[in-house]
Parts: sequence; structure tokens; C-alpha cells
Amino acid sequence: MRNFIVVGHKATTTPNFSLEDIPGTSGRLDILCRAVTAAFVISHGIRKDVCVFLVLLGGEVPKTIRLVGETLRHLNPDERTTAALLKKALAVPATPQWALSTSGIFVRTGGLAEVLADLLDAKLIYLREDGADIRGFDESGLSGEAAFILGDHTGMTPEEEALIEQAGARVVSLGSTSLHADHCIVLLNWFLDTKVFMQG
Amino acid sequence: MRNFIVVGHKATTTPNFSLEDIPGTSGRLDILCRAVTAAFVISHGIRKDVCVFLVLLGGEVPKTIRLVGETLRHLNPDERTTAALLKKALAVPATPQWALSTSGIFVRTGGLAEVLADLLDAKLIYLREDGADIRGFDESGLSGEAAFILGDHTGMTPEEEALIEQAGARVVSLGSTSLHADHCIVLLNWFLDTKVFMQG
Repeated sequence: MRNFIVVGHKATTTPNFSLEDIPGTSGRLDILCRAVTAAFVISHGIRKDVCVFLVLLGGEVPKTIRLVGETLRHLNPDERTTAALLKKALAVPATPQWALSTSGIFVRTGGLAEVLADLLDAKLIYLREDGADIRGFDESGLSGEAAFILGDHTGMTPEEEALIEQAGARVVSLGSTSLHADHCIVLLNWFLDTKVFMQG
Repeated sequence: MRNFIVVGHKATTTPNFSLEDIPGTSGRLDILCRAVTAAFVISHGIRKDVCVFLVLLGGEVPKTIRLVGETLRHLNPDERTTAALLKKALAVPATPQWALSTSGIFVRTGGLAEVLADLLDAKLIYLREDGADIRGFDESGLSGEAAFILGDHTGMTPEEEALIEQAGARVVSLGSTSLHADHCIVLLNWFLDTKVFMQG
């Protein structure tokens, strides 16, 4: 299973945003929409072996939306459709337990610490420009249950970095060019598809 | 310079589509919008050394929109903003000569044959799943003036494939998983950034 964790530091936790201006009204939920598409969408299909955690920190109480490829429905490649699915999920009353929104989409209260606690058994990889080159990894380093942690346009806070370090994540880089989270996910999926890192 | 040519077989050539339903009203111009973002957008910036040709074949007369990184303005990472820029370009009266729309965005009549004629001196690479593995290329094969040709969700027609072959393009593959055009462009930019193909 490939898990992608994306932290939206200003991302709204309510459905009160406009699909006509997602970047301007949702705390940049558009970044997370594109991350979802990058994680799941291939030509004529959805990746079944992917799970995405969107950590939304732009409200009074953090919320997390989880999307599970195995049962995910209604996901189209365009940004607005994804935003509409997230809007529905944010209208579901959230508690510390996962509640189902539409098929394959779940929501709960809680933030990054809770997601990391869920993924105790996964190999945690934190993407940062100054990390170790991903091409240096052997296959065992990235196969199996892997979880990739990515920030949004604001980067991680020192507190989040401490949490990630305590969870035992390795810090890995995709190169010196600073890329958007969705583009990093495209590259990670390709690495896992082709196992190119075996040749690094 | 990195050139990306994306053919939208059903993409509208008029501005008469709705920004509230881009996939449903524009002949899948959303695919081309995402290709534009993948080609240009990096964290906190635009790639200056990129040029994108969008070949729009969904109207009575083919049109091509050209986006030039060096002078491109107003491009945001979200899909709707890009669609709005393309909408403006499609409202400009088009002739066989390039006409300026907003900064860095040009439009003319003509399709794939005309774009290939513009790029006579570039190394042409046609992306197709059954092509030669991109990791087998040495640096000289992809550096310099390169032009990558990508299809949309419908694939190329036999006539287009013949044009591309006559132009001398090499057929290259990014792997056996069939990916969307924008995801291919993310990978190609990364290859060119990191020169990983030198290790293939």
C-alpha cells in the first residue's frame, strides 16, 4: 500500500468555500485536490493500492480526510470535482472516529500526530529538498507499506518536523528543484511503479 | 528550451465554454490546463525555459495556443485560472500568424503539422507506452532544444502518427503504466532537471 500524507496548513475544515474560487476561499484546498488526483488517477482508471490522508489545519479543530483507492468512487481528474467531494466530506459531522462520506472517503477530527499513529507499521518517508537522494534507496527501502509525508506551499512547522522525526521518518529528496506536492506524488508513484530507485 | 506539444482532439477552439464545468463544456480543455500547469509551475515560480503548444482540434478549423515561459504572466497553479487564460486566448481573432493574447500566450489557426514545421530543429520525442525506455537515453538525446509530443485521453490518430514519424520523432516510453499527459510532463521535467536518464 502507498500512503500519501499531505498537510494543508491553512486548508478549511468546513464546507463553506466556493467551487468558483477554490484557491481564494478554501485556504488553498486546491493544492490538496491536485495531490489527490496525482495519487490516484491513471489513464482510464484509479490506483487501488493508494491511500491519501489530507490533514486540514485551517479551522478551529484539525480534521483529516482519508481517501481509499480500493473503494473510491466519483473521482474525476478535474480539480473542481475533487473539491466537490472534499466539500461533501467536510459537511459530515466529524468525531475522533472515521465517518464515511461518499464511497472511499472518510473524515475525522485530528491532525498529523493521529495520522502518524495510524501508520506506525509503515515505512515513513518525509519529502524535503535537502533530504537523501531518493535514487540511492534500494527496493526494500520503499516497497511494502510506505507512507510519504508532504507539506503544502508553507512548509512544515518546527513542531511538525519534530513529530515526523520522532515517528522515525527518513528525510528524502526528489532533487534540488522545489516542486509542488502533487508533482512530488506523480514522481513517487512512478518510482514505485518502475522501481527505478533500484538502479540509483 | 523544453517544448511540450499536447494534442486535444476534442478541445474547443472557441471561448464559449463554462469555467463552472470545464470538462463537460470545452471538449476536455481541463486536460490541457493541467498539462500547462505541469509544464510551467514549480514552487514559488514559473519555469522560464519551457514552451507549450496546445493543439486544439475540436472546432471547424484547428487552432494552436502557444505559451512561452519567458514572458508568461498570470498563471496560477489552479485549473480554473489556466482555463480562464485559454478562454481569453480563444477570444482573440486567429489567423495563420501568431497573435498575442495575454503576456506570453499566443494563438493562431493551424494544427499539429504546423507546430512540427515550427520545430524542425528540435529533437522530437513522441511519448507512447510501447516506445523505448526513456532511461536508456544518454544526455545528448534529450538536452538542447527538445520537443515532446503527447496525446490526450483519446490517443493519436494514424494520420497524426504518420506526421510525427515523418518529422523524425523518436518514440519513447515512461513505463508500462498509462499516465495522463500532465503526469508525463511532470516526469519529463524531472528527467531534464536531474539528468537521471544518464544513469539508465
